[in-house]
Amino acid sequence: MKLIIVILFACLAGANCMNNGVARTPPMGWLAWERFRCITDCHSFPESCISEKLFMDMADRLDKDGWKDVGYMYVNIDDCWMAKERDATGRLYGDPERFPNGIKALADYVHGKGLKLGIYEDYGKLTCGGYPGSQGHEETDANTFAEWGIDMLKFDGCYSNDSSKAVGYPLMSEALNKTGRPMVYSCSWPAYEGGLPPKVNYTELGEICNLWRNYGDIQDSWDDIVNIIEWWATNQNVLVPAAGPGKWNDPDMLIVGDYSLSVDQSMAQFGMWAILAAPLFMSNDLRDIKPEFVQILQNKEVIAVSQDPMGIQGKRWLNKDKIQTWSRPLQNGQYAVAVLSTRTDGTPYNHSFSLSQLGIPSGAYDLLDLFPKKSMGKFLSKDQISVMVNPNGIVMMRATPVKFAVPLFD
Amino acid sequence: MKLIIVILFACLAGANCMNNGVARTPPMGWLAWERFRCITDCHSFPESCISEKLFMDMADRLDKDGWKDVGYMYVNIDDCWMAKERDATGRLYGDPERFPNGIKALADYVHGKGLKLGIYEDYGKLTCGGYPGSQGHEETDANTFAEWGIDMLKFDGCYSNDSSKAVGYPLMSEALNKTGRPMVYSCSWPAYEGGLPPKVNYTELGEICNLWRNYGDIQDSWDDIVNIIEWWATNQNVLVPAAGPGKWNDPDMLIVGDYSLSVDQSMAQFGMWAILAAPLFMSNDLRDIKPEFVQILQNKEVIAVSQDPMGIQGKRWLNKDKIQTWSRPLQNGQYAVAVLSTRTDGTPYNHSFSLSQLGIPSGAYDLLDLFPKKSMGKFLSKDQISVMVNPNGIVMMRATPVKFAVPLFD
Repeated sequence: MKLIIVILFACLAGANCMNNGVARTPPMGWLAWERFRCITDCHSFPESCISEKLFMDMADRLDKDGWKDVGYMYVNIDDCWMAKERDATGRLYGDPERFPNGIKALADYVHGKGLKLGIYEDYGKLTCGGYPGSQGHEETDANTFAEWGIDMLKFDGCYSNDSSKAVGYPLMSEALNKTGRPMVYSCSWPAYEGGLPPKVNYTELGEICNLWRNYGDIQDSWDDIVNIIEWWATNQNVLVPAAGPGKWNDPDMLIVGDYSLSVDQSMAQFGMWAILAAPLFMSNDLRDIKPEFVQILQNKEVIAVSQDPMGIQGKRWLNKDKIQTWSRPLQNGQYAVAVLSTRTDGTPYNHSFSLSQLGIPSGAYDLLDLFPKKSMGKFLSKDQISVMVNPNGIVMMRATPVKFAVPLFD
Repeated sequence: MKLIIVILFACLAGANCMNNGVARTPPMGWLAWERFRCITDCHSFPESCISEKLFMDMADRLDKDGWKDVGYMYVNIDDCWMAKERDATGRLYGDPERFPNGIKALADYVHGKGLKLGIYEDYGKLTCGGYPGSQGHEETDANTFAEWGIDMLKFDGCYSNDSSKAVGYPLMSEALNKTGRPMVYSCSWPAYEGGLPPKVNYTELGEICNLWRNYGDIQDSWDDIVNIIEWWATNQNVLVPAAGPGKWNDPDMLIVGDYSLSVDQSMAQFGMWAILAAPLFMSNDLRDIKPEFVQILQNKEVIAVSQDPMGIQGKRWLNKDKIQTWSRPLQNGQYAVAVLSTRTDGTPYNHSFSLSQLGIPSGAYDLLDLFPKKSMGKFLSKDQISVMVNPNGIVMMRATPVKFAVPLFD
């Protein structure tokens, strides 16, 4: 309660500040796009078309298969959910064939499972898929979403230009705030502007959005993950200060459990998204995901890194021989550390580093290897730590200061 | 017996023809390189260093885990097996620390399991890893290998130039033939010459080698597989006529079960290697390979395509929207068909084609889907066949002529 008051107070200082109090840690859930796209032919594809059934199925799985218990709370609709025209009163509504009970009923269903419902719109004449956009309807749409009980809005940027976006994204932020219903506000805006200053103003984004897509859409491809991570590292001096509780850089969805990633690559994406303090939205089919991927995505140690209350995004400190080493500061003087390999030369690689090379203060630390959940022992920050990292793989650790050990050993 | 006589007779016509009678279908087995490279530190890496233990372990697994039963017969050593110098009599011998019992004992062990042993040398001053090369020692080395009971030789091309290779590869072929022991002869030669005429003479290769590497070394990477397949398709008019019983184009090892391939990508590599009539040498760790990859690599229907006695290499016929469709003629008027997707857009893709678009004669065919081993029903060659192919995935079929149906339906 105290925390909320502090947040509201802090936000009152800025005119357009997101005062919704949500997404204090990176939001977690499920999002339809990467896996299910804009499939609208429910006759041919009844299990995978964008329909209320799909989202009810995913809500069922989030509820029953342990996802909710580890933090995956949002069931998020993406594009292609709407009727092709607004109704007579100018309001949006779900495609009547595919959402016969309407979005409010779906929200009730999802809330009944103890989960939250996200939705998609676009600031433009049309959405990317050609459905009605929000331009000129910001307040109506925000109110509609609030009345339905929507908990998050992904706001895309097709069919609008740079200058209209600069008006529309703040306008929708204000409209959402005015409804009085806290809705996480995800802005695709910076991705359309190249993701970097001076075209992108991260101070403003942090005041009006809870998260934002900085870079291109992820596809079902390891290459994309490597490219995204490289872009994040290259621009970390811009991106790291932009992130924090309530405001997150979004490298896009988790594709773990889909068609392209091996188990090692899956651990690598999941671990790196945790280091990057990224929103964790899976886009996969929770009805038939294989157990080895469930195990990765439900790893509580890695999720704890992602959800650290300090909300500080990690940085790359070392990058040599296709082995990159990252660290992320966590609460209580702890650090997450990731050694990521983009090597393809067949055999695990022996990488050595010290914590002091990763911006970690002098001292003694207990190291826990997070994927196998295995203690690695105690290390001084100057000690060499050797890990074997698989091709396209990750070794992910948490360093916890050993109390009172500092003056004795370092 | 008749077949062997025919082959020997056919070969006597050509002066340098491989008259070893082996590799009448693409050889199958296991090869150390991609997965285990040149790890020689057995103290630090006792399980993965290049040592007699590694090859004995793999022979055990090939024997006991069903591999031998479906055709994987070769256990192949790659680089870094030798002592750094020849012995006093000028002969090669295994590194005494890592192969304390010598290669002959290893061959005996492998033969005792009903398997065959392959070895590696290089036509140059040194092997790629810096061990003694065969240049000037061709007869000695061929005789040594024959005395040890070697069944296959991979002959690499580091530390030699174009003109010495043009002498060395035929010379070693002759030396191997002279021993009287049939040894499959794998030539890396064309890969060093760009793989294409006029620098590469495929007629000559077919006369002196049983298989040859045409292209770069495969790494643990889906991108490599896509690149290899693209190169094979682009140059199919050169490559297809070069292949046949006893002489094969080699797109390099299978990396299924390693660190980088998903299950769909694994089916894609395995299926395409069968279509390409490629040697099937796995380079993985058979001691801890996951069951889903074993199932792919031991798929008897796909192996039957690979091992078709006609030995005709497949061709790409359609290539659009990142969906490519291949066919390979098989015995008894049958055809293998593969639909390969390199798409990454999240969801299975609906691809339609007809058998007549794939160079398959008019008629009626029974179609069998080979990975799920499921009948798809009967189709006329002009009928549209619709398949759903996963991103980075394959649908692999066998078309069998329906007897007497041709005049009735087509």
